Amino acid sequence: MSSARIITLTTDFGHGDPWVGQMKGAALEVAPQIRLVDLCHSVPAHDVAAGGYLLETAYHAFPTGTIHVAVVDPGVGSARRAVAVSTERHVFVAPDNGLLTRALDREGDHRAYAIEAEHYYRRPVSATFEGRDRFAPVAAWIARGVALEHLGPAVGDLVRLPAAVEPRAGEAVTVRVLYVDRFGNAALDVTAETVERVLGGRALDGVVTVATRDVSVDRVFRTFSDAPPAHPFLLINSAGYLEIAVREGRADEALGLDAGTEVELSLRG
Amino acid sequence: MSSARIITLTTDFGHGDPWVGQMKGAALEVAPQIRLVDLCHSVPAHDVAAGGYLLETAYHAFPTGTIHVAVVDPGVGSARRAVAVSTERHVFVAPDNGLLTRALDREGDHRAYAIEAEHYYRRPVSATFEGRDRFAPVAAWIARGVALEHLGPAVGDLVRLPAAVEPRAGEAVTVRVLYVDRFGNAALDVTAETVERVLGGRALDGVVTVATRDVSVDRVFRTFSDAPPAHPFLLINSAGYLEIAVREGRADEALGLDAGTEVELSLRG
Amino acid sequence: MSSARIITLTTDFGHGDPWVGQMKGAALEVAPQIRLVDLCHSVPAHDVAAGGYLLETAYHAFPTGTIHVAVVDPGVGSARRAVAVSTERHVFVAPDNGLLTRALDREGDHRAYAIEAEHYYRRPVSATFEGRDRFAPVAAWIARGVALEHLGPAVGDLVRLPAAVEPRAGEAVTVRVLYVDRFGNAALDVTAETVERVLGGRALDGVVTVATRDVSVDRVFRTFSDAPPAHPFLLINSAGYLEIAVREGRADEALGLDAGTEVELSLRG
Repeated sequence: MSSARIITLTTDFGHGDPWVGQMKGAALEVAPQIRLVDLCHSVPAHDVAAGGYLLETAYHAFPTGTIHVAVVDPGVGSARRAVAVSTERHVFVAPDNGLLTRALDREGDHRAYAIEAEHYYRRPVSATFEGRDRFAPVAAWIARGVALEHLGPAVGDLVRLPAAVEPRAGEAVTVRVLYVDRFGNAALDVTAETVERVLGGRALDGVVTVATRDVSVDRVFRTFSDAPPAHPFLLINSAGYLEIAVREGRADEALGLDAGTEVELSLRG
Repeated sequence: MSSARIITLTTDFGHGDPWVGQMKGAALEVAPQIRLVDLCHSVPAHDVAAGGYLLETAYHAFPTGTIHVAVVDPGVGSARRAVAVSTERHVFVAPDNGLLTRALDREGDHRAYAIEAEHYYRRPVSATFEGRDRFAPVAAWIARGVALEHLGPAVGDLVRLPAAVEPRAGEAVTVRVLYVDRFGNAALDVTAETVERVLGGRALDGVVTVATRDVSVDRVFRTFSDAPPAHPFLLINSAGYLEIAVREGRADEALGLDAGTEVELSLRG
Repeated sequence: MSSARIITLTTDFGHGDPWVGQMKGAALEVAPQIRLVDLCHSVPAHDVAAGGYLLETAYHAFPTGTIHVAVVDPGVGSARRAVAVSTERHVFVAPDNGLLTRALDREGDHRAYAIEAEHYYRRPVSATFEGRDRFAPVAAWIARGVALEHLGPAVGDLVRLPAAVEPRAGEAVTVRVLYVDRFGNAALDVTAETVERVLGGRALDGVVTVATRDVSVDRVFRTFSDAPPAHPFLLINSAGYLEIAVREGRADEALGLDAGTEVELSLRG
């Protein structure tokens, strides 16, 4: 594998501060031929659940062999582990705080190693910026061919985020808004696949209801173009999750939704 | 042409969401050697006119052979066409909704083809994210050498945005604000070239007036440094358009301007 | 030196407008093999002090031979000089307005040249966008191997920003907030190195106090994880500067801080 490998970056560092640039510099210093691609830097600050969702929605669009660095890390500077994890097609480098749960569930089999071999770190290691001093250079060393086994001991107990609530036919369950995008669309922590399995293959329309305290939404459309303007509706977003949207409007404002907001999901039995 | 070609991306997806990253992944999966450059992702949501202006201001800075992908697409998922268009120096890939009108007017001769050959799409094609599933991979195939003729039938009736109002000497006309930039400068839908042609070569200063309901601006300066602070003035921006600005201030706030706001333009006869 | 050199970009252009993309196009037109990396584009508009700080925090993470283009330029279009400056490891291209003061102080020895050789500019040169027409193409020519001496005459009197106030033990001095980051952390214009030198090696904890009109902060922690939540504390940030932070909160809001705000720094004698 050549050092022209792709490294993607997902963080909650935003685009305003020079942290992402520093991570890139630290990686390029190790492996000048890598190709760096920003995946997402606007994960809500410290929101590991949203970060894991955004990583899951995007990593799989990349070619086999891509290395994905993800840093959403409320515990930076604490004793939490850093890990490198390989699956059949991808490699992930991240704090061991559940950020990778969704991506790894999607990938299936994986091997995980703690990152402890300090000679792969940038020197001096600061107390507050592991993205630059640890995650980015380690990813670049992996791009150069360092085997994950050389980074540290195998890890069999990766930290996992709690699984999403499983909906049931004929019974309302509480699900959370995972993420609100630029257009105000609110992705829910339930996949279309799950809903369809529970419904046994019946069409979603007229059977799925999402309710906030004030508003109940049960119209399902395939695309924005199909939906009438200004009314909240449900759709399966491009990542395969159930999403509340308003054509030519903002679902977050119409329904009072934000990352973490709980809504009721009902599947008619 | 090698696959190290440059592909630029212009969208209204913003920088917060992971959509641009996914487009890059989908393009890199097809053509790992391409060079991806973000041109602009903060087109106001669904604003095809502003998107076309921003694309026009920026595409021509790129070398010959560059492929420009532009996605501002209120009709995503509907039956509107997708097109690939080549000019003498550039290639454009976009929805056929007028987004390319300005760039193609600037380029002159062009050949346009509908994008219909599904074997160049990413699979599965989602209903809501053609940027990732259709535009980005098709651009990458073009970078790999696929001829535009192989994408679909020739198109002779590209959708065009309405042309800007032509100003006349001695007569006030209504023109729209195309775009307000980060500093509050408001670009108008009239080029310096047009104004100078109408004025027959006379200097703009003292002859051009732009008026909102409340404020009339007729001072023209060549640069910000020349203008006195805190007073609205006119200037020819770096894209060749007439622009309202305030040195050390914001023209949008001073004059109540936003994309789409109509102002009166007068050229003294 | 091959033309695959890295060029970083630091500006106050933001991510919303297509200016950075145009700079990249103009650079790629000169040197198609360069690697462009965004270092930071959210320098507060026209804030040369903050821009110099952000550049200093980030440039040194890049490999030897990197060319750093920095454009924060309230004087664009005026007669201020443009300069190219080389140090042992890095090259800088910027307006001569003090933007490079901090980076060059950190680098030590340097050679500076005015940029006057117009055949390296992009044509036509606009009055308002030197980033695209002058700085970016000149950096690309340097990447292609043009010696700085060929750009213009040597410069011995680079414009310098005033040095930060030197703290003294037992005496309160006024220092400025340099920058407030995405998380609300406020970096002060005083380095840990300076504080430690003044204190003669004593630990910072219990000895350093930063006071606004309303709040006095004297607790120092090494990392966010060490600090109790919701209380302002001091830390040495990853760039080596003293910073006011609030774990799980925003120091800027808690203490009324913004770039330029003055606070009192006391080092107990």
